[in-house]
Amino acid sequence: MTSYLDQLRLAIETALDRFSTMPVGCPSQLSDAMRYSLLARGKRLRPLLTIVAAELCGGKRDDALPAACAVEMIHAYSLIHDDLPAMDNDDLRRGQPTCHVKFGEANAILAGDALQALAFQTIAANSPSPTIAADCVRILADAAGCAGMVGGQADDMREELGFKPPNAEQWLLEIHRRKTGAIIRAALEMGASVAGANENQRESLKSYGEHFGLAFQITDDLLDCSGNEAEVGKRLRKDSEQNKLSWTVVHGIEKSKSDAAKAVEAAIKSIEQFGNPSDATKRITYEVLVSQAQGLLQRRK
Amino acid sequence: MTSYLDQLRLAIETALDRFSTMPVGCPSQLSDAMRYSLLARGKRLRPLLTIVAAELCGGKRDDALPAACAVEMIHAYSLIHDDLPAMDNDDLRRGQPTCHVKFGEANAILAGDALQALAFQTIAANSPSPTIAADCVRILADAAGCAGMVGGQADDMREELGFKPPNAEQWLLEIHRRKTGAIIRAALEMGASVAGANENQRESLKSYGEHFGLAFQITDDLLDCSGNEAEVGKRLRKDSEQNKLSWTVVHGIEKSKSDAAKAVEAAIKSIEQFGNPSDATKRITYEVLVSQAQGLLQRRK
Repeated sequence: MTSYLDQLRLAIETALDRFSTMPVGCPSQLSDAMRYSLLARGKRLRPLLTIVAAELCGGKRDDALPAACAVEMIHAYSLIHDDLPAMDNDDLRRGQPTCHVKFGEANAILAGDALQALAFQTIAANSPSPTIAADCVRILADAAGCAGMVGGQADDMREELGFKPPNAEQWLLEIHRRKTGAIIRAALEMGASVAGANENQRESLKSYGEHFGLAFQITDDLLDCSGNEAEVGKRLRKDSEQNKLSWTVVHGIEKSKSDAAKAVEAAIKSIEQFGNPSDATKRITYEVLVSQAQGLLQRRK
Repeated sequence: MTSYLDQLRLAIETALDRFSTMPVGCPSQLSDAMRYSLLARGKRLRPLLTIVAAELCGGKRDDALPAACAVEMIHAYSLIHDDLPAMDNDDLRRGQPTCHVKFGEANAILAGDALQALAFQTIAANSPSPTIAADCVRILADAAGCAGMVGGQADDMREELGFKPPNAEQWLLEIHRRKTGAIIRAALEMGASVAGANENQRESLKSYGEHFGLAFQITDDLLDCSGNEAEVGKRLRKDSEQNKLSWTVVHGIEKSKSDAAKAVEAAIKSIEQFGNPSDATKRITYEVLVSQAQGLLQRRK
């Protein structure tokens, strides 16, 4: 599995570099800012999920790379904009200065904007068929838009500005579902789409993404409240400093741990139908999805 | 022609309202900010060009409405982000407070981000076929991205920060071509795409868009230097106050007027092949393109 994952990550890095080699007409200061954020050291979790989902459903890796890179571009743009002074005002990301600290605020806003356009351009111009391209654009735009990632971030900001939600548990779940979960679910659904998966397989993978996304966010909240800044590479304790709702604030640390474990279990259960395949690639991709979910529970170490 | 244009504008307003009726999950403060900017009184020039181009090539209006609304969404998002304090820092737009003045800076950044996603989502989910959807997403994303609109804005900002280009004429032409021209050209090319136009028709309309976009920007610069703020509905004299390059600064007012007239002439010449059609709709759409170009020269009044 390690060599499979290493190969996959290399394929993703190579494709990200290729799809972000900017055409004539792109100013160098903009290209630099875009590539600084997109190509920064990262786990490449979302593109990895797209490709693994595609291969699990019998699709080809090369066919999945455009959608996989697009989801990472959306992720990178969202980090740039979330870090802006008017938003979370962060100066450190993945152990490096954030985009606006390094390139200025105007360039950072524009780099985010251009990365979003590049995501949809990459899918539209490189997908294996127009039908897959249109499907993936719809899936990703839905997930990235006002009822998905951006909607979650908008409500998150509202809370920072002093809004007190009447039902904290439900409010937080809805923020997590949109702000983090929607893009992770879309990563998996695009993988299914690229592979021409049937409705049943697609629903399985979306459900895995739903539970995986929740486990991811709960473990992120646990990390924020008890992780080590140097190891994690970003500023921590922000939730408690800013008096913001988080899973650990609302539910306590012990319940957060057990909720994360339950979400991981539900994610793995969602893809039961893919268990024990005869095909070697399908077997390893199934194992990757299981181990990626289980790995979330180790994030605190 | 007046009743044709009135009908067309009504169809565009209705479709914009429909495509921006946000789904559950979109926070109201975000939806309000998006609709405030998108549905503000405007000329709807870009969507109008998309539909007219489609009808000129024998396409159906309803088929062109998703792409037409998408180009207006991209335009609206770009205005929101351009007006931000870190960019042009404008407080007045179309005679109203700008989005960040009314809804706060974080909401304005997010409303712009969500409008961009909505543009691609609208095309992907509503186009007459996946092939047209994928083609229009590619055209619009190219035009909106780092080598188009965002690239032009990035170089424009660079100049505001004190950069002095070695060749002012070429620099300015390249900024105009990307910042304004690319989206106008895309509006026309998407119209051709929706109608299944042949390569020759498509090139004609792109060339019209190229010249139209230049004439538009030159007349905008003329307006900035000699218009009336109350009539125009935005802050003027910005170029001269900020010591920024503009067509009038580089070429003087008289040459700017004659350059605009030449660009209009070239735009009209580009669509010669569509002149004198037998079909009534094609005749009126051809006349609209001619009169829209000529109308640019009247903008100073």
